[in-house]
Amino acid sequence: MSAYDELMSYTRETEALGAIMGRLSWDQETMMPRGAAEQRGEEMAALEGVLHARRTDPKIGAWLEAIDASVLGEVGLAKLRHIRRSYERNTKVPAKLAAEIARVTSVAQGTWAEARARDDFAHFAPTFKEVVRLRREEAAALQEGTDFDLWDALHQDYEPGSTGAELDAMFGALRPRLVALRDKIMGADQPKGLSGTFDETKQMALTEGLAAAFGYDFAHGRVDKAVHPFSSGSGLDVRITTRTNPEDPLNSIYSTIHETGHACYEQNISRDYLLTPLGEGVSMGVHESQSRIFENQLGRSRAFTEYLYGQMRDTFGEIGVDSAEAFYAAVNRVTPGYIRTESDEVQYNLHVLLRFDLERQIIGGALEIDDLPEAWDTRFEADFGVKVDKVSNGCLQDVHWPVGLFGYFPTYSLGNVYAGCLHKALRAEMSDLDAQMAKGDTSKATRWLAENLQQFGGLREPRDTIVHACGFEPTEAPLLDYLEEKFAGIYGF
Amino acid sequence: MSAYDELMSYTRETEALGAIMGRLSWDQETMMPRGAAEQRGEEMAALEGVLHARRTDPKIGAWLEAIDASVLGEVGLAKLRHIRRSYERNTKVPAKLAAEIARVTSVAQGTWAEARARDDFAHFAPTFKEVVRLRREEAAALQEGTDFDLWDALHQDYEPGSTGAELDAMFGALRPRLVALRDKIMGADQPKGLSGTFDETKQMALTEGLAAAFGYDFAHGRVDKAVHPFSSGSGLDVRITTRTNPEDPLNSIYSTIHETGHACYEQNISRDYLLTPLGEGVSMGVHESQSRIFENQLGRSRAFTEYLYGQMRDTFGEIGVDSAEAFYAAVNRVTPGYIRTESDEVQYNLHVLLRFDLERQIIGGALEIDDLPEAWDTRFEADFGVKVDKVSNGCLQDVHWPVGLFGYFPTYSLGNVYAGCLHKALRAEMSDLDAQMAKGDTSKATRWLAENLQQFGGLREPRDTIVHACGFEPTEAPLLDYLEEKFAGIYGF
Repeated sequence: MSAYDELMSYTRETEALGAIMGRLSWDQETMMPRGAAEQRGEEMAALEGVLHARRTDPKIGAWLEAIDASVLGEVGLAKLRHIRRSYERNTKVPAKLAAEIARVTSVAQGTWAEARARDDFAHFAPTFKEVVRLRREEAAALQEGTDFDLWDALHQDYEPGSTGAELDAMFGALRPRLVALRDKIMGADQPKGLSGTFDETKQMALTEGLAAAFGYDFAHGRVDKAVHPFSSGSGLDVRITTRTNPEDPLNSIYSTIHETGHACYEQNISRDYLLTPLGEGVSMGVHESQSRIFENQLGRSRAFTEYLYGQMRDTFGEIGVDSAEAFYAAVNRVTPGYIRTESDEVQYNLHVLLRFDLERQIIGGALEIDDLPEAWDTRFEADFGVKVDKVSNGCLQDVHWPVGLFGYFPTYSLGNVYAGCLHKALRAEMSDLDAQMAKGDTSKATRWLAENLQQFGGLREPRDTIVHACGFEPTEAPLLDYLEEKFAGIYGF
Repeated sequence: MSAYDELMSYTRETEALGAIMGRLSWDQETMMPRGAAEQRGEEMAALEGVLHARRTDPKIGAWLEAIDASVLGEVGLAKLRHIRRSYERNTKVPAKLAAEIARVTSVAQGTWAEARARDDFAHFAPTFKEVVRLRREEAAALQEGTDFDLWDALHQDYEPGSTGAELDAMFGALRPRLVALRDKIMGADQPKGLSGTFDETKQMALTEGLAAAFGYDFAHGRVDKAVHPFSSGSGLDVRITTRTNPEDPLNSIYSTIHETGHACYEQNISRDYLLTPLGEGVSMGVHESQSRIFENQLGRSRAFTEYLYGQMRDTFGEIGVDSAEAFYAAVNRVTPGYIRTESDEVQYNLHVLLRFDLERQIIGGALEIDDLPEAWDTRFEADFGVKVDKVSNGCLQDVHWPVGLFGYFPTYSLGNVYAGCLHKALRAEMSDLDAQMAKGDTSKATRWLAENLQQFGGLREPRDTIVHACGFEPTEAPLLDYLEEKFAGIYGF
């Protein structure tokens, strides 16, 4: 076997073991008996140990050196790029530091949950500082030999090739127009929301039908209930979860369509890439573009909500609104709120931009953890016009930072910006999209995404993946234009 | 760290990885989408590779040599015994042979299923011969440096310390009395069976209640549906499966009680042994003793069926029999049949003894595969008084041999013999057992098993585990006495 073939065979086994880890996480959130957590923790730590040893094995370095890249085509080069990036990333961080981060962030999650429940920032502050100190140390190790700043170095794990400076420019353009749009909406009359009680078994049946309508392949997946909706797995086994609330069917519906977007991306990657480094969504931002375009630009469109309104009435009878138009307004309501995960298309990005700016300061060393609550509250009031009432509604609301996820948040907004671009490109090619969507037929839109983006998996770099699909360089303009037009229509200004 | 501590730490990680393999098998049989099989196969093969490398790592040999066993207590010595046995077993078999066996038996399962469906022994014969050839080769490797014959060498994987000669003596005593009992029963009037249609959702609810009644801990387990009932996992996460048939609620009920026996054994092992070599049931025979005593001596007893009759009537209304006495007879009916898995307490062991005798001849080289169907049919007619009508009702009925499981079958009957002994010991200590069981209260009986047997896991050798619990050397007499008395009562002779 050539060095290339040996490396590919080795990598394939590592990918297979990595897939097992994903399956264990899924089981933990859906099926695992509550008393099994301690044992499961040991099982996953043992597998993590195996994976880390494989991913840092010096054999990989030797193969990478021995391979003659000049004979490889696009696919081979792309695989090498992923493998080299992973190997360099994992070998840069000392094993002791990696283990320390795993240990501290695992404990931190519990302490954070306590602090959030008690609204007591001081309870979490010492642990929080330790998490930041360790991640900054890791960032310094990752930064070696690159042009990245500390935040960029962490951000590469989620969005390879992207930098804080580029994002700053893009998101800087988003913020004023989003704040202005938000203010206009808050000054207008609110449409009515849904009302009633919505049977949870019927919600599950409806959402499974919606997943199928958006192209989710149940021969290679399944839908279960979990505390938090998520999508899990790649290739031939991609599972999603949802939750139901008898008073709020829209949560279940739109979180399912969102996760279906993630899952269809994974399911539609070329089978040729199965269990290779190209066999997964290429970045968090590109992944989020798929979930967001499914959920928002398609799922919350005037056309699709017309179909969904019929489904809702057939399923539940009276739902508190009595026309497709009123239902469209209800699913797109923008209401004040502190919490990112409960937010809408307009305010969501403002929540993310706030976090992006603050975390760059934290990792850059310009903002101390002790000063975070005040910095958060000041910025929140500037963007949302509301004073934060308590720290659980402020900087303790998200699990990301407590478990060390710095550099992750902006991928949510990058996904929205990318979704805006993809939606523009899709509309330009499909004049009859609305007519199909109004019948509940998403197939042309989802096929366009599968053919122009999803099938390629990790073949191209994240931004190039979007450029290839859209035919133009991504900017924030399509998203902003879409939002302004849509909400002007709904709120009548 | 001492060599002992290092070995224990290493073994613990291997145990944790082994537990993951069990979880993947469970998922495959219960949750996995049908299109995921190919990917799952690669995942499990990758993990199997990791496990095999760990179990044969020369480090283990070095640690075993370096350890001063004279300072160890009973628990430490028991752990070493398990580790040494596993290491010697796994290093004796050349990696190439192990891989060949894995490859051939995996293909063989498919070919066997085809041959069985077509009733075509010749279709499977070439593969069957290859399986036997490879397992005999493995047996020869395992036999090195021991006093075992070839069959014994394979049998050690399932029942360490047991030999064909010992089993031959024990089972030789079973056979004539079982054949005589069977003949008497077949000459008597048959009691009525159940009739009606039994809602499958209600069956699931009833069986989950029965699992709980027998002490199954749902905080460390769960019940799902699968094609074949099984128990899976050890320690803090032990799951069981069942199946339902709208025409036959007894299948679901008694397979659930059976699997609950297996599962309670695993759940009740001392937490001190979690993820150590002592943290699993000690052998297949001892395991089967727990499932069988739950299912038969307890679950099919006159006392417990009185309680169950009430449950059945409350759940399903009319069930085709109208007294507890008639229900007791119905759940213990002995009817002619070719299939082991559909058999009853009396005939089951005859099915097993037939397989035990034939497989010893096959592995010993005294019986050629081409002569197997005739040998099977001749023996079947001698023990069951019926001519085998087709090979799918004969030597192609079980999956065991096709996938290379030689040396396994007799553990089923050994489990029955052990269950007979445990039942005798339990009765001797508990005069009010029937009064409790008639109220559906199994707690005294199951606690006795937990305290006297299950908690010890792999601490003692299999036979010693039984001796410790019973207080006497196991023989076939208690089982035979119990069966003769029970069925004389039911069939009135």
